[in-house]
Amino acid sequence: MENKTMMTDLYELTMAQAYFDDNALDSVAYFDGFFRNIPFGSGYAIMGGVDNIIQYIQNLKFTDEDIEYLRSTKRFNEKFLEYLRNFKFRGDIWIVPDGTVIFDNEILISVKANLIEAQLIETTILSYLNSCIKFTTAAKRMVESANGIPILEFGARRADGPEAAVLASKCAYIAGCVGTSNVMAAKEYGIPVMGTMAHSMVSAEESEYEAFLKFAKSFPNDSVFLIDTYDTIKSGVVNAIKVANDYLIPNGYRLKGVRIDSGDLSYLSKKVREILDEAGMQDCKITISNGIDPHTINALRIQGSKFDLIGAGDNIAAPKERVGVVYKLVAVEKEGHIIPRIKISNDAIKIINPGYKKLYRFFDKKTGFALGDVMALHDEIIPEDTFTLIDPLNEFNTTVIKDYIVKELQVELFKDGKLVYEDPDIFTKQIYCNVQIGTIYPEIKRLVKPHKYYVDLSRNLLDLKKKMILEHKKSAGVE
Amino acid sequence: MENKTMMTDLYELTMAQAYFDDNALDSVAYFDGFFRNIPFGSGYAIMGGVDNIIQYIQNLKFTDEDIEYLRSTKRFNEKFLEYLRNFKFRGDIWIVPDGTVIFDNEILISVKANLIEAQLIETTILSYLNSCIKFTTAAKRMVESANGIPILEFGARRADGPEAAVLASKCAYIAGCVGTSNVMAAKEYGIPVMGTMAHSMVSAEESEYEAFLKFAKSFPNDSVFLIDTYDTIKSGVVNAIKVANDYLIPNGYRLKGVRIDSGDLSYLSKKVREILDEAGMQDCKITISNGIDPHTINALRIQGSKFDLIGAGDNIAAPKERVGVVYKLVAVEKEGHIIPRIKISNDAIKIINPGYKKLYRFFDKKTGFALGDVMALHDEIIPEDTFTLIDPLNEFNTTVIKDYIVKELQVELFKDGKLVYEDPDIFTKQIYCNVQIGTIYPEIKRLVKPHKYYVDLSRNLLDLKKKMILEHKKSAGVE
Repeated sequence: MENKTMMTDLYELTMAQAYFDDNALDSVAYFDGFFRNIPFGSGYAIMGGVDNIIQYIQNLKFTDEDIEYLRSTKRFNEKFLEYLRNFKFRGDIWIVPDGTVIFDNEILISVKANLIEAQLIETTILSYLNSCIKFTTAAKRMVESANGIPILEFGARRADGPEAAVLASKCAYIAGCVGTSNVMAAKEYGIPVMGTMAHSMVSAEESEYEAFLKFAKSFPNDSVFLIDTYDTIKSGVVNAIKVANDYLIPNGYRLKGVRIDSGDLSYLSKKVREILDEAGMQDCKITISNGIDPHTINALRIQGSKFDLIGAGDNIAAPKERVGVVYKLVAVEKEGHIIPRIKISNDAIKIINPGYKKLYRFFDKKTGFALGDVMALHDEIIPEDTFTLIDPLNEFNTTVIKDYIVKELQVELFKDGKLVYEDPDIFTKQIYCNVQIGTIYPEIKRLVKPHKYYVDLSRNLLDLKKKMILEHKKSAGVE
Repeated sequence: MENKTMMTDLYELTMAQAYFDDNALDSVAYFDGFFRNIPFGSGYAIMGGVDNIIQYIQNLKFTDEDIEYLRSTKRFNEKFLEYLRNFKFRGDIWIVPDGTVIFDNEILISVKANLIEAQLIETTILSYLNSCIKFTTAAKRMVESANGIPILEFGARRADGPEAAVLASKCAYIAGCVGTSNVMAAKEYGIPVMGTMAHSMVSAEESEYEAFLKFAKSFPNDSVFLIDTYDTIKSGVVNAIKVANDYLIPNGYRLKGVRIDSGDLSYLSKKVREILDEAGMQDCKITISNGIDPHTINALRIQGSKFDLIGAGDNIAAPKERVGVVYKLVAVEKEGHIIPRIKISNDAIKIINPGYKKLYRFFDKKTGFALGDVMALHDEIIPEDTFTLIDPLNEFNTTVIKDYIVKELQVELFKDGKLVYEDPDIFTKQIYCNVQIGTIYPEIKRLVKPHKYYVDLSRNLLDLKKKMILEHKKSAGVE
C-alpha cells in the first residue's frame, strides 16, 4: 500500500502549524479512539483494521510534491513546511488486536505522541477503523447466524471502490467467512478464492443446457451451475441434472453444486434438494445468495431450508450502518506529569472518559466466559481476587465479581515510532476471532435485542471523571 | 491510480476460460449497467465515477505476478493464462457523463465487447458506479436543501478507507459542495480545501481562550473557532469575541467565523448570531456541523436558524444506503446480427430490458424542463415532433408530448478500446451538474415523496420485450 500521508483533514495541518508556531513540538498528548454505539443493533462488534494502520504509519512521509501542494494553498509558513518535510511518527500506539470482540466506549486505540503527530494521523486511522470494524462485525453476525454453514463473501461490486472491496474481503475472512470472490483480495492476503458463473453466461448461450455444458467442459471438477436464470425448478435444476448425466458422470465427475440467486430461497432450496436427491445427486451442494443478511439466514434455517453454502455480498461489503469511531484527546503531559483532559457535553454519553487509560477484560475462571470490561487509569493495579463493576451511567448499579482471570486487551503496536508488534496473518486472526467470540455469553450475541455487555470504569477513573466535570462547569460558570 | 485488473470476481475469470476453451473469443456481447431503485427515497440520482472508469480501463493489464497467482489457484489452463497475459480491452463503451441527473432503470453504461472483455470489467466498474453515484446523489440532495448556503464536505474519517474518502470528496464537489477537508482529494483533483480546528485543540490548552488565541496568531486571516467544547453560549462564543477584541481587531483582522458542532443547532445558531451582532461582529460567519443531512438542513431553515456554511461528513462519505447498479447481458452478435437477450424473473421490475439500446431525454422546448426519458433500440429514429411516452409497467398509461428537444444521454467513451471522450475537469462537471438539476421539475426534486420521473421504453422496445418474455416462457415450458 502506498503513502497515505495526505489523507488527512486540513484542520489537522492548520492546528499543527498553530502548535508549531507556539513551539509546542515537545508537548505530549494522549488520544483515545472509540465508538459510542454498536451498529446493527448488535450486542458486540469485532475489531479490524490493525494491519492497515501499521502500513499507514510505516509509510508516513510528506513527499516534495505534497509540500509543494501545501505551499500552494498559501496557508502555511516555510518553517512549518520544512518541519513537515522531515515529519515522522515517533510516538507510541496501543491497539486492540484484529478479531477481538469489542464494545461501545472501549479504547480501541490509544496514541501517545506530540500533539502534531497524534493529530495528523487521526483521519486515516479513523477511516480504517470505521470501515474495517463495520465489515468484520457485519460478517461475524452473518457467520454466527449461519452456525457452521460456510459463507463466501462476494460483495466487491457493491463496495465503495476497489480498495474498500479489498478491505471488506480481508475483514470478512478474519470474521470467519470461508473465502472471497475478489481476486485482488485473494492474491493480496492469500484468502481462498471462489466463484463459478453469472446469469450472463446462461443468457449469452442459446440455451441454459448449452451454457452448463460449456462450463462443465472447462471445469469438470468444479461444476457449480447458476440455476435461476429462467425458472429454477422447471428449467434450471433440470438442465443441471441433464448436463451431469450427459457429460459429467460419463466422464467420471460429479455435479458439484447449484446456486439459487432469486425467488423464495426456502421453498426453492427444499424443492431443488428433493429433485437432486431423486436424481441420485445427494452430494450436490446448494448455494444460496441474493441480499443475504443474518436475519434472513436465521429465518431460512428455522424453516428447514436446504443449503450448504451461503454467498453474501452487500450486507458485508456495503452494510447500511456506520460504526462512528471518534478520536479524542484525553490527556496532555506537562513537566513529566500526565494531566487528564475532558470534553463536556449536555449528553452524558458524549462526555469523554478522561486520562491515560488501560482496558481490561475479566473472564470467569471456570467457564472462560467474559464477565465484563473495565477501563482504568494506566497506573492502577487491578486486584486479582475481587472486583466491583460499576455502571458509569448509574453508579448504584454495581456487580461484584470473583474467581476471574483479567487480561489487558490492548497490545503495544508502536513504541517511539517503531513497530513492536508482530501482527498475525489473517488465518491466525480468523482462529483468534473464533476463539474470542466463544468467550461471549450467548445473550450478548443474540441477533435481536441482545443483553448489554458491561463496559465499566474503575472507581478511580469514575471519580476523576466526576471531579473534572464539576471543575469544568465551575470554571465555565455553567454550574 | 494503479492497475486494478485483479479487482474482479473469480467467476468473471472462470466464465472467461469457459468461453476461451469454446473458441468464443470473437463472440460479441452487449451489457447494460443500471440500477432499479433510487436510494434515499429520492426522485433522482446524479451520475458519478466516469473518470475512475476511464483510468481503470486504460490501466487494464495482468502482470506476470497476477498470472503467477492465477496459475497457483490451479483452476486455469496455460493457453488461457497466455491469453490473459496479452489481455486488453478492445471494445466500445458508452456512458452517461458525470453530473447528469439520472433515474432508475436507465442505461448508465453500455458495453460492447467480446464476452470475456465485457465480463472481466464488470466488478470494478460496478464498484465505482455504486460508490460514486451514492456520493454524488447524497451530496446533491444536501446542496439542494441548502438552497445556496455553501456546504463543505468533511467525511474522510467516516469513509470506507482512504481511497473511498477521495472518491467521496470528488463526487461531493461535482454535486456542488464548495470544498473538502480532505487534503489528498484536494491535491489530486484541485478541489478547494478547507478546515480550521478540532475540539482536541481546545482541550489540549489550559483554556478555550488560550486555544483560540494561539490559533489566531497562526492564522489571523483565517480565524474560525470551534465554540462548543465546553459551553457554546456561556463560554465558546464569549472567548471567540474576547480573542477577536484582544488580538485580531487590534492587529487589523476580523473574526472570520465560529463553528457549532453539537447541541441544538437552531437555538444555538440564532443565539450566537445575536451575541456576535451585539459585539459588532456581523461579518463573522457561523458554520454548523454534526450529522447534517438534507432533512436536518430543511428543518433548520424552516425555523430560521442562522448559519452561513454547513459542514457535512458521514451523510456524504458514508450514507446509510446503497445504489445497487447491476450489469446485465442484453444482446449478443451472431454472424453480424444483434440478437437481443433477456433474463426472466417472476418480479416484473427485475426482468431486464433486452437489446442494444440508446437513452434519450426529452426537454420542453419553451421551458427547458425535462419531460421524460426513453430507451429505444439503437437503430430507432426518434421523431422530432410528437412522441408517446408509455409506462413500461402499465401500457395504458401513456403521455403524448410535443414541442420538445430530444438529446441522447450517453456519450461514446471508448471505441475499439481507445478513449474517444474528453472527460471534463471537476469544475466543469460541477457547473454541468448544476445546469442539469435546473432542468428537473421541482416535484421530482422534492426531498420527501417526490413525483416519479418518466423512464419509458419505446413502442418497439416494449413490444420486443413482451415477445421475448412469451417466447422464453414457452421454451422453458412455464407458460
